[in-house]
Amino acid sequence: MTVFHDPPVFPHGFRCASRNCGLKPSARDLAIFVSEVDAAAAAVFTRNQFPGAPVTLGRETIKGGRLRAIVANSKCSNVATGARGLENARRMAAAAAAELGTTPDRVLVSSTGVIGVQLPIETIERGIKGIAAELGADPLAGAEGIMTTDTHPKALSTRVGDATITWVAKGSGMIEPNMATMLAYIFTDAAFDTSTLDRMLRAAVDVSFNMLSVDTDTSTSDTCAILANGLAGAVPEREFQDALTAGCIRMTEILARDGEGATHLLRCVVHGAANDRDARFVAKALVNSLLIKTMVHGADPNVGRILMAVGKCVDCTMKPDATDAWINGHAVVRGGARLDFDEAAVRTALGAEVVDLEVALGVGDAFATAYGCDLTKGYIDENAAYYSS
Amino acid sequence: MTVFHDPPVFPHGFRCASRNCGLKPSARDLAIFVSEVDAAAAAVFTRNQFPGAPVTLGRETIKGGRLRAIVANSKCSNVATGARGLENARRMAAAAAAELGTTPDRVLVSSTGVIGVQLPIETIERGIKGIAAELGADPLAGAEGIMTTDTHPKALSTRVGDATITWVAKGSGMIEPNMATMLAYIFTDAAFDTSTLDRMLRAAVDVSFNMLSVDTDTSTSDTCAILANGLAGAVPEREFQDALTAGCIRMTEILARDGEGATHLLRCVVHGAANDRDARFVAKALVNSLLIKTMVHGADPNVGRILMAVGKCVDCTMKPDATDAWINGHAVVRGGARLDFDEAAVRTALGAEVVDLEVALGVGDAFATAYGCDLTKGYIDENAAYYSS
Repeated sequence: MTVFHDPPVFPHGFRCASRNCGLKPSARDLAIFVSEVDAAAAAVFTRNQFPGAPVTLGRETIKGGRLRAIVANSKCSNVATGARGLENARRMAAAAAAELGTTPDRVLVSSTGVIGVQLPIETIERGIKGIAAELGADPLAGAEGIMTTDTHPKALSTRVGDATITWVAKGSGMIEPNMATMLAYIFTDAAFDTSTLDRMLRAAVDVSFNMLSVDTDTSTSDTCAILANGLAGAVPEREFQDALTAGCIRMTEILARDGEGATHLLRCVVHGAANDRDARFVAKALVNSLLIKTMVHGADPNVGRILMAVGKCVDCTMKPDATDAWINGHAVVRGGARLDFDEAAVRTALGAEVVDLEVALGVGDAFATAYGCDLTKGYIDENAAYYSS
Repeated sequence: MTVFHDPPVFPHGFRCASRNCGLKPSARDLAIFVSEVDAAAAAVFTRNQFPGAPVTLGRETIKGGRLRAIVANSKCSNVATGARGLENARRMAAAAAAELGTTPDRVLVSSTGVIGVQLPIETIERGIKGIAAELGADPLAGAEGIMTTDTHPKALSTRVGDATITWVAKGSGMIEPNMATMLAYIFTDAAFDTSTLDRMLRAAVDVSFNMLSVDTDTSTSDTCAILANGLAGAVPEREFQDALTAGCIRMTEILARDGEGATHLLRCVVHGAANDRDARFVAKALVNSLLIKTMVHGADPNVGRILMAVGKCVDCTMKPDATDAWINGHAVVRGGARLDFDEAAVRTALGAEVVDLEVALGVGDAFATAYGCDLTKGYIDENAAYYSS
């Protein structure tokens, strides 16, 4: 059981700051995260084939395996902006490096917001000037600077031996990451080399951010990076991996619960699958089904939709008459047929803030959990005028 | 150019009737479609792995290649109902056969509505008694009996030589057919053998109903059947295939436009793809993207979402800098970057009832069109309490 700090804190040697630099009317729109010494670093990025300029630059930067800082802005994602966009991303790294006394190849750049608009780079460069003087110990301050439609800043921290791990993330729409979530940064003072960090990060992301879907839409900016500055020395890898994975899962739940318009966290647990691929595919099909999402929103025990969503996975191995399902522990389907369950009790269970939908396929031993949320009118309000508003 | 009759008519020898038999408070909930002689028949059914009892029975029935009638009810889909469900489907076929003076193996049964509830078979048997006396020439009367959340009954007809083809269909939610749409029946007095019919039906469905998605959810009841009673004699196969395909596409558009809560028909046209699979995959990704659907709903020219939805097809071949896009003819993306287009004009274009979103991948020669609709609060109203209401 991983215990998270309340409020979250930073590991030794990490600080952050955020500002309004003028991209948004008044909210914070620029954040910087800094290690006082170079940190070993690894990152995973979106697999979307139209990655933003910061992702293109980030892939180049992370090859060095060392980072001193992350600089990120909200409001404009610098995606679909061509050669000028890439040049602007480089200018952003250079401005942060100059402010912090490091080199641009030690700075990871992220941008999030509307696609297809050029970055107001001069505004950002002015905003970066002097921000080093404001660096502080509160991870939530940095988290606030990267929010878009998030309703609250998102940070977590926990201890592993003498070391601390801290997560800072954002993201609530255009969220079905395919490598990592919108923006998730992980900081630790544990000492690991780059290749170990990379392996641990991929293992954690695989069962957390890569199993998250708010709206089936894979962003062009997804980035998840980990920085380990080593100031707390070595910690056992196994223990660190467990805590890293637990924190990534918890952050995934926080992102899902804050999905655009969401009023419930929806966890879809599939077990008894023939293999991992099937387990993950069915769990994603459940969490992405609009009819499941609206059923949860309306607390409407229309449980036939569970069988529909499982059954539409036509390439997964199933035994329809061995399929069982539960909603928050209430058995609703057994052997592929709807049970005569207590509808009032299931309606109440569907009203809980966290809804666990569990399906046993009865075929094999593989399992997976997918994370998402309900679909509400709030999502439509948020997205029918995102560009214009 | 296929011309459709207004109002639609039946081919020689086909009639239909519908009634309220008591499944719904007052709306028609039972329909019967009859040929005066045995017709050659072919059908395709859902690939969902939890098919309803009528689909299981239908697969058995259609093996005979001959049908006299289709009997269908709305309100209850007879899915996830086990052995008793299958027995009830057989009783429904037997009741219709007795009423019409034929045998149960000549009757295709369909049920549509809530999943996981046993069919009130006695109510339906009572409803079937005497319905033969009400058979008439208006296809819309039969279409009305199979409506669920449809806002209007759906039928089309056209001529091919001396023959007529008539389509009757329903479906507006749980619609991403994977073999056929919810319920679509096609009647003709042209003479074709069963295997030719089957081949022509599959070719037509492949580019029409199988490219339709209202909400990405594949029903457990999808059925598309064609009956050819031969009373008009032979017609040229090529000409018939063209009309059959044109009518299936037109009916697909009608179903998409009447998608639950929809206010727009959305057609996503992809060309320049490396192969058919890629073209279909990208077109479906566009039509299913919640962010594209809400962009169309809000007439918000957030065209970066087009690149996002194309780019998330990570297994499709692309040249990002060769990708162009248009909205109702307005160029909005060229070479993978957002154009500096006239926003007011594109906003107006997005306000049209039919929105054509066209993407050129610039890779090869394959193309495909997918059919869908916008995502609105009406969809959520419809589906957050479907079971309870």
